Amino acid sequence: MHENGLDTLILTPGAAMRYLSGFSEHGSRFLALVVPDDQPWLFVTPALNAGQARQNPADVSDIRVWDDAQGWETLLASLSKDLMLDIGIVGLDDDMPARFALKIQELMPTALLKLAGAALAPLRAVKDALELAALQHAADATDALIPIAYEACRIGASEMEVSLALGQSIARAGYQDSFAPIIGAGPNGASPHHNTGKTTVKTGDVVILDFGAMADGYHGDITRTVAVGEASDEAKRIYEVVYRAHQAGVAAVRPGATAHDVDAAARRVIADAGYGEFFIHRTGHGIGLDDHEAPYMLSGNYTPLLPGHCFSVEPGIYLPGKFGVRLENILTVKDDGTAHVFNQAIPPELLVL
Amino acid sequence: MHENGLDTLILTPGAAMRYLSGFSEHGSRFLALVVPDDQPWLFVTPALNAGQARQNPADVSDIRVWDDAQGWETLLASLSKDLMLDIGIVGLDDDMPARFALKIQELMPTALLKLAGAALAPLRAVKDALELAALQHAADATDALIPIAYEACRIGASEMEVSLALGQSIARAGYQDSFAPIIGAGPNGASPHHNTGKTTVKTGDVVILDFGAMADGYHGDITRTVAVGEASDEAKRIYEVVYRAHQAGVAAVRPGATAHDVDAAARRVIADAGYGEFFIHRTGHGIGLDDHEAPYMLSGNYTPLLPGHCFSVEPGIYLPGKFGVRLENILTVKDDGTAHVFNQAIPPELLVL
Repeated sequence: MHENGLDTLILTPGAAMRYLSGFSEHGSRFLALVVPDDQPWLFVTPALNAGQARQNPADVSDIRVWDDAQGWETLLASLSKDLMLDIGIVGLDDDMPARFALKIQELMPTALLKLAGAALAPLRAVKDALELAALQHAADATDALIPIAYEACRIGASEMEVSLALGQSIARAGYQDSFAPIIGAGPNGASPHHNTGKTTVKTGDVVILDFGAMADGYHGDITRTVAVGEASDEAKRIYEVVYRAHQAGVAAVRPGATAHDVDAAARRVIADAGYGEFFIHRTGHGIGLDDHEAPYMLSGNYTPLLPGHCFSVEPGIYLPGKFGVRLENILTVKDDGTAHVFNQAIPPELLVL
Repeated sequence: MHENGLDTLILTPGAAMRYLSGFSEHGSRFLALVVPDDQPWLFVTPALNAGQARQNPADVSDIRVWDDAQGWETLLASLSKDLMLDIGIVGLDDDMPARFALKIQELMPTALLKLAGAALAPLRAVKDALELAALQHAADATDALIPIAYEACRIGASEMEVSLALGQSIARAGYQDSFAPIIGAGPNGASPHHNTGKTTVKTGDVVILDFGAMADGYHGDITRTVAVGEASDEAKRIYEVVYRAHQAGVAAVRPGATAHDVDAAARRVIADAGYGEFFIHRTGHGIGLDDHEAPYMLSGNYTPLLPGHCFSVEPGIYLPGKFGVRLENILTVKDDGTAHVFNQAIPPELLVL
């Protein structure tokens, strides 16, 4: 906090709160972990979540409760006065909704608001042994879904049915979805963030399967691309380009490399093959308690890769009106600066189901 | 906007963007609908979502695209200069994450930031005929799940299995979850926002079943409470109190009534029965494109109820360590000021499955 010029953190439910306290909760009401730099931490919680907040694994014992009739603003304002939070720099949770952030500025007019994320990101980006074990656990649970996805991805099945089969399998195994699976059949796959829908799989379709299971709060996330029934030569060719780009991205993880290098290595393969303009996103994202977090494998991001960094390598080629191919695994940077891939190897040739 | 002193709206994905444009999208990247008061609307979108944004139903044709290498900040800053957005009052989406909101303040240092929600809430709260039809559609789809929930709620079934049965049924019928079902068995039901988990249903358990299906973007949301195998006298008694509180809340919807009156009517029944301290949340929330939106049935909220208002009435009693009972239906205020309940009637006595 001092290095980042922050006197207090105010974190709302999400990955940052969970990272620091082991606790987080859903809900539209104001719930916050308040972290002053020189005083005990405390929770501000709606009555509805007071019981859950009291059981926080970090044993934060100062729990301030507000109810619907009273509102949270009065409580936070008096708290801020008592603890003199309003005469310093307050770091807000990056994901805090504006309805709280702008209200906090009103309640604490003399406080300077900054984002807390920049202070937390480097800590969160480097995973310790327990976190690496959780990510391996999530990766194993995610890999176990690959046959389920292939099995569900039959001619006549809808994208939603494939997604449902994954969801059932995740829940039955005692895990949670990392995110709503992205199943993109045929031309839908050309939209990287396609919304899984009612489109059915047809003979010759190239299908993108992007899904993950979560373990101990840590996210899994892989993408496989398959053809169903038969595969065109174009689909096979594109797949092999993306496969080589993926391998190049992973191989770029070496001592002294930066996030930019990983992106550049994958992007070069695709550009050299003549498809540069169809690779329309960054090569990867960090992963942990959030499914997207630092470090981002992004052109211009010269962050050095450090042991314990965990991120996706997921190049893709998207041909509008035709199909998309994306291949994604999660890896961590080992002590020697090279990659340990958490997931199963990606097939080097387009699998025809 | 003029009534609320706003010169520009900047809306990020969510209900407000969808309300004004028919379009919204998931994702962690900056995507915004910019609504100046005297110039055409425009979208700022990542390359990834440009195709989807171009198909927005409101036919907003000015689509400004940024890519991962360039970032959104440069684009928004120059846009703001060109359109002179930074010399006015800018209303931010209430749900905009702080990482965008604080950055916008940096990019537009001369702009005064407010929340856009207050300007949109009264418009969004009063539903037109098409919206009422969508909410009735969502309510019907939700009511159709009641037998599924009862069927799944057997001795030995886990909360998660009940939730999964609902999820499957919703997806098979072509709808989407309104929210992750809250299934609270036995003592878990005493936490109103319990996270559905691995707890199994035991003989004599009181189980809270809170779920909904979404239709055309509009949310369904009901709660039923049942006993499994057998029911204690205490459970039956508490159920009847909550049932009467629910009926009183619905009956309080009459010409001239306010949101406060609905809350007070339900709360009085529970207080009179001696359980006032165990009803720890407001009586209801508005519903529409968001599952919680204005108007809120809340003590001290003297907003007059208007024809077209749609909201839940959902009193509850939560006995720590024992069980909870909550009963919820969605209704709308008719032109004559009384309630039309969208959902099936709630059983007046505790159902024993």
